[in-house]
Amino acid sequence: MSVGFAPRLIGLDWGTSSLRAYLLGERAQVLEERARPWGVQHTPGGDFAAAFAELVGDWRQAWPGLPALASGMIGSRQGWREVPYVACPAGQDSLAEGLLRFDTGRGDLHLVPGVMQGGALPNVLRGEETQVIGAMALEPALAEQSMLVLPGTHSKWASVREGHLCSFATYMTGELYAILRDHSILGRPARELGSRTSDAAFAAGLVATRDAGAPGFSARLFSARSLVLSGALAADESLDYLSGLLIGEELRSVLAGHPELAQMPLVLLGDAALCARYEIAFDLFGLDTVRRLEHATVAGLWRIAEAAGLLAALSDYGAPRDV
Amino acid sequence: MSVGFAPRLIGLDWGTSSLRAYLLGERAQVLEERARPWGVQHTPGGDFAAAFAELVGDWRQAWPGLPALASGMIGSRQGWREVPYVACPAGQDSLAEGLLRFDTGRGDLHLVPGVMQGGALPNVLRGEETQVIGAMALEPALAEQSMLVLPGTHSKWASVREGHLCSFATYMTGELYAILRDHSILGRPARELGSRTSDAAFAAGLVATRDAGAPGFSARLFSARSLVLSGALAADESLDYLSGLLIGEELRSVLAGHPELAQMPLVLLGDAALCARYEIAFDLFGLDTVRRLEHATVAGLWRIAEAAGLLAALSDYGAPRDV
Repeated sequence: MSVGFAPRLIGLDWGTSSLRAYLLGERAQVLEERARPWGVQHTPGGDFAAAFAELVGDWRQAWPGLPALASGMIGSRQGWREVPYVACPAGQDSLAEGLLRFDTGRGDLHLVPGVMQGGALPNVLRGEETQVIGAMALEPALAEQSMLVLPGTHSKWASVREGHLCSFATYMTGELYAILRDHSILGRPARELGSRTSDAAFAAGLVATRDAGAPGFSARLFSARSLVLSGALAADESLDYLSGLLIGEELRSVLAGHPELAQMPLVLLGDAALCARYEIAFDLFGLDTVRRLEHATVAGLWRIAEAAGLLAALSDYGAPRDV
Repeated sequence: MSVGFAPRLIGLDWGTSSLRAYLLGERAQVLEERARPWGVQHTPGGDFAAAFAELVGDWRQAWPGLPALASGMIGSRQGWREVPYVACPAGQDSLAEGLLRFDTGRGDLHLVPGVMQGGALPNVLRGEETQVIGAMALEPALAEQSMLVLPGTHSKWASVREGHLCSFATYMTGELYAILRDHSILGRPARELGSRTSDAAFAAGLVATRDAGAPGFSARLFSARSLVLSGALAADESLDYLSGLLIGEELRSVLAGHPELAQMPLVLLGDAALCARYEIAFDLFGLDTVRRLEHATVAGLWRIAEAAGLLAALSDYGAPRDV
């Protein structure tokens, strides 16, 4: 590998299901990117040190002392080291102060802390704080006031004010979808008969939730079964209907609590295919102001490393060599 | 076996997870009762005829021609024979007219139809229609206007008016609890560390839902994790908190749609332990008028058999013999 620009930072996005490593040059330019399905739950042998050495050991060897910073579940109790949460509101400075540094055997690694929001029903996130910081780095206008939506296994809705993550909510949309598909009666038709994509069924699930009257969420869920039994929904399209019910419930809940959402910047961060589904949902719920922002994790890792003083002068790391 | 009274009907309560058989005498008196864990999903070898012969074959032999009537999922597509749903509102007469009769090889068996409620989001039930008819048979005052609550895997809330099941809703409370406990991150602490009963944690889940502001159901669910992470909830008590969230959501939803509930007879039918949990929940939600009613299935089978003309004179079945 010949690197045209001097590397400044090794950034790691190490979540529950995947591990992504970035070799970053000046101004967070991605010089090289590597990915493995070695999320915290799926790291071979649970050996984080071996996975780290395998994925970025050659970078470490080529540029001894190059700082490395990781965000995500790798800093959880189930991860490599547990990093205490920082309090909400959280900004780049409190996250930088909360970094945990330890010796991996292949040089030091810094871990970004998650954020805990107190209250009667507390809330936590890990990994998304870095995306939030990154979004503000990419678009400084978001820092004043905005809502950032991070769909996923546990979707996060992050309210930003004056450069800080000031509050957030967690919707278990992705996990509910997966366990209902794999283990409930609602997934049985698709498990037995197979499944095919249906934009119409997805929209029907969204609309059923948007237009719902009194009966609650778990009652609407059952319509994914009763509509199949009544013949109104094809069995092999029922998973997309279920997905519409679940994503719709997430939007319905948030809109009920945030009527001001249409008046502020609204941004989707994360997996492109999933964000595309949420764009359809936002549109059906009448919120056509939402847009997508990419590369927030890399920008966030860079910004937090900067705030922590990890990005020293190039000469500290020696000249780049072929590896 | 020596039977002191002449049997009039074999009644079967054949659901998803269990099979119960009753030998009924005059005025629905239970002469003998037998139970097996042979629900429709668990019948050995899927052989309903063999299970039927094994459980009630001796009754059939002793009293040839004694009518047999079954309710529950045995009449579903996954059951022995599929009985078409009757329309809602449904009463004892329409259910009696909708009976499906077929030859089991050990004499005829009649199956009670389920009920389908039409509309944009249709709804279905099978088995509960018999409990509803039975509740009215046991307490005629319920027939004018009442709400019958049947907790379970799929909890049903049945509105009764003028002797008919006039509408109903389905809450997937029991199934959601089971799959979240067994497969989601919310069940992980209890799966890893074990679980113990906690009335306080159950109540906390109920209260969290009762007093909830804007954030929706799937956001509240996540508190079963964040409270453990913040140390406010013991890991081994988290399942009872989850149960409280789920049963609480069911009550919250129904109360939002039925503010008149406090002004009408409100009755719980079904499993005693589960009904006891719902009584605690009703109490915390300020509905202290709820009470429990037992033996509704037997009363319902009897009443439907009567309406269908199955309960002919004793002499039709021959004299009782020792078996």
